[in-house]
Amino acid sequence: MIPATAADQDLIAEVRAIVGERGVLTGEDVRGRSCDPFRAVPPLGPMIARPASTSEVSRIMALCARRGQRVVTHGGRTGVAGGAYAGPDELVISLERMARIEEICDIGLVAVVEAGVTVEALQNAAAARGLLYPVDLGARGSATIGGTIATNAGGNRVLRWGMTRQNLLGLEAVLIDGTAVSAMNRLTKNNTGYDLKHVLVGSEGTLAIVTRAVMRLVPAPSSQAVAFVSVAGHEALLALLGLARRLSTLSAFEVMWPDYYDLVSASGADRRPVEPGRGPCVLIEAMGYSAVLDRKIFEDFLEGAYEAGLIAEAVVAASDRQIAELWRVREASEVIVREMSPFVSFDVSVDVRHVEAFVERAKTLLGAAYRLVRTATFGHLGDNNIHIAVHVGPGTAAEETNVERLVYQALGEFCGAITAEHGIGQLKRAFLPDHKSAGEMTMMRRLRDGLDPDRLLNRDVLF
Amino acid sequence: MIPATAADQDLIAEVRAIVGERGVLTGEDVRGRSCDPFRAVPPLGPMIARPASTSEVSRIMALCARRGQRVVTHGGRTGVAGGAYAGPDELVISLERMARIEEICDIGLVAVVEAGVTVEALQNAAAARGLLYPVDLGARGSATIGGTIATNAGGNRVLRWGMTRQNLLGLEAVLIDGTAVSAMNRLTKNNTGYDLKHVLVGSEGTLAIVTRAVMRLVPAPSSQAVAFVSVAGHEALLALLGLARRLSTLSAFEVMWPDYYDLVSASGADRRPVEPGRGPCVLIEAMGYSAVLDRKIFEDFLEGAYEAGLIAEAVVAASDRQIAELWRVREASEVIVREMSPFVSFDVSVDVRHVEAFVERAKTLLGAAYRLVRTATFGHLGDNNIHIAVHVGPGTAAEETNVERLVYQALGEFCGAITAEHGIGQLKRAFLPDHKSAGEMTMMRRLRDGLDPDRLLNRDVLF
Repeated sequence: MIPATAADQDLIAEVRAIVGERGVLTGEDVRGRSCDPFRAVPPLGPMIARPASTSEVSRIMALCARRGQRVVTHGGRTGVAGGAYAGPDELVISLERMARIEEICDIGLVAVVEAGVTVEALQNAAAARGLLYPVDLGARGSATIGGTIATNAGGNRVLRWGMTRQNLLGLEAVLIDGTAVSAMNRLTKNNTGYDLKHVLVGSEGTLAIVTRAVMRLVPAPSSQAVAFVSVAGHEALLALLGLARRLSTLSAFEVMWPDYYDLVSASGADRRPVEPGRGPCVLIEAMGYSAVLDRKIFEDFLEGAYEAGLIAEAVVAASDRQIAELWRVREASEVIVREMSPFVSFDVSVDVRHVEAFVERAKTLLGAAYRLVRTATFGHLGDNNIHIAVHVGPGTAAEETNVERLVYQALGEFCGAITAEHGIGQLKRAFLPDHKSAGEMTMMRRLRDGLDPDRLLNRDVLF
Repeated sequence: MIPATAADQDLIAEVRAIVGERGVLTGEDVRGRSCDPFRAVPPLGPMIARPASTSEVSRIMALCARRGQRVVTHGGRTGVAGGAYAGPDELVISLERMARIEEICDIGLVAVVEAGVTVEALQNAAAARGLLYPVDLGARGSATIGGTIATNAGGNRVLRWGMTRQNLLGLEAVLIDGTAVSAMNRLTKNNTGYDLKHVLVGSEGTLAIVTRAVMRLVPAPSSQAVAFVSVAGHEALLALLGLARRLSTLSAFEVMWPDYYDLVSASGADRRPVEPGRGPCVLIEAMGYSAVLDRKIFEDFLEGAYEAGLIAEAVVAASDRQIAELWRVREASEVIVREMSPFVSFDVSVDVRHVEAFVERAKTLLGAAYRLVRTATFGHLGDNNIHIAVHVGPGTAAEETNVERLVYQALGEFCGAITAEHGIGQLKRAFLPDHKSAGEMTMMRRLRDGLDPDRLLNRDVLF
């Protein structure tokens, strides 16, 4: 371990004076952590500060501004875009000691939480009161509310309840000079001045540190219907989506392309609800509050789609266990890891009209560059969001940037977005200027300069 | 008419060189307009510029930046907060010649429009394609998409489809130095960098001029059910709202307090669907895509509410004509104008738990200050948004500021918002600092300084 320099020791002492002994991690407690969920990427700086209140965050930030000290904020450290990576001259501020659920209100349908609360903890606290926190994603057990605000996390049910942005009512945040911005709004409609939370959502820690938040809750649905269907092709898929959008209860429309479904359905009979080799498959879910009638509406929808010739084969879950089984077909990332590693993973958005053409174009470009190309394509089609895993042989890891370049080239031809929900972080930063207009880059720069003129916050993130 | 100064004539000539003869209004064509829907408030500056493209807006803005020329942007000029008021040294830029609907896509469910398109024109164009533009408000015929973005307009169906912010996917805007920011995103999920549209929504023309936009559409509902009910009191009202939130099809929950309902129902038998004098009334609307089953779910809900003792009396519309009649009871602003003028009108938000206490407190404060106090209270309770009209005698107009002070004092005690959907404009500007935290004011100032350092855009608006 590299011993701390005098300057580091001075910083550590100053931070310790603010947050106390428990609020400071150094040495092995720092190096033993990772900033990445898939590989060991320890923070390289001298310490992790663990403030216990907005006021402590504020005092640390004022200190950093005074010292010109760079800062990286840590939530659950399971983001996949490198937004939490911290270099040798960066102080990590972790919100892990601010993990209190302060209030759940079942009349106002809000939760007041500290930023270090995990998505799962909030989901559970809401469920205990008959409510639902609608944002759900694989990393629910580690991702924090603060982190999901910073990255505008999405997930499976965005087409019904929106991304984190749409479920955020208010927040408290600290600017780099220590200014605490208290904007703990609980109201659905509030047009008093700039809605500052929306400036911070998705800013990936570059503008402020979010310390507390007010999240929107909804009544917990009491009905859930899930069907797994295969469709004839792209036209039928779009027509089916059009029909599904007329379900007031629609909560998920998850598409699996044949490359994905063939792989996953070969991994076991319980993951083969319909015959493979018939075109794309779709998991359609509806959630509501009137079990019997919701079911009838869902069945009418399926019947209509079948009669219109849109569905080749369909399975409807008859029990909670079957619902879980069908979802396991869609969430089979461990099969991809087992069968396709190493692979490059994509999280892109593209106009539903162009999804098929984009996927074909990306495969064509990859096929022209590599002898062996394997892909698994799936995603939240109702939100324009598809994920692709790409394997180009044992040397895939070394080819990562080139594979990204090819896929993003195809994406650019269809005006797609290089990240739908994972964010830019450090890992996609180089690609950003090619996918934003010059005016957007200018405006982003002015906003960042306005709030963090010395670029002390997450300097290597975004742009 | 005051003749134009040499400096004015110079400005007019420079703008004319950009936008051509048709793009310039001067003299009576300026003074004959009003910046306020209720009174004659003409623009006081030398001219109105009417650019026909983003590029023309950009060139005018660059000119203004160079000259240090202040600018006020005009959409439909029917905002009620004075956001369009223009002083003698302010150039008005009107988007009225940018009123083209460029595209409606019924697969991607988006509309691409110029900012001067009215809400109604977009609604009609969407309807012609079997789609709905969900934002709806009284001023639909005059309010423009650009103006509703600048003010984040709400309306009647926010609890189902959200405010303008939630229905905006992308935009094009021009910064004060002429930088055109093209961010015409069409994708639901797109986390590539700061989501700049959200910085501009609700900024009331102080940060940029929006010139084009991509709006979200939804399939046009095919079922509509409306009930008009009276409830016993505040507790029953909140319990009824709780039940109604479990309707996946809920599209409106509009409350009329006795002061409002007694006034309106006395104006004619067709506006008296239930007996007055029984506590608050509620118009509940549900819209969906399965006529028969939606109706059954709605009736089950009403039956449940009745059995739980929440509803005293109920009327369910049996035809489109009856639906329109019931909505007319809720939208009877002309009765208020006829029976209560002059009055001060409020658009506030307050936590549903405290609505009743707030209304009582406001009336108590008004009652202590004035011998005669008449009120009419109604609003979108599901969104926390209530409107109050207050009359304190023939001298009400002169008392406006004092009446506002009293109502906002009551509101402050319950952490309410002084504007839910109308905005701050010039007319509520003086009250803003009392209702925002010091940190919020600081952050707002830094954002404004970052984008418009010389405060040339809508200088007297907001703060």
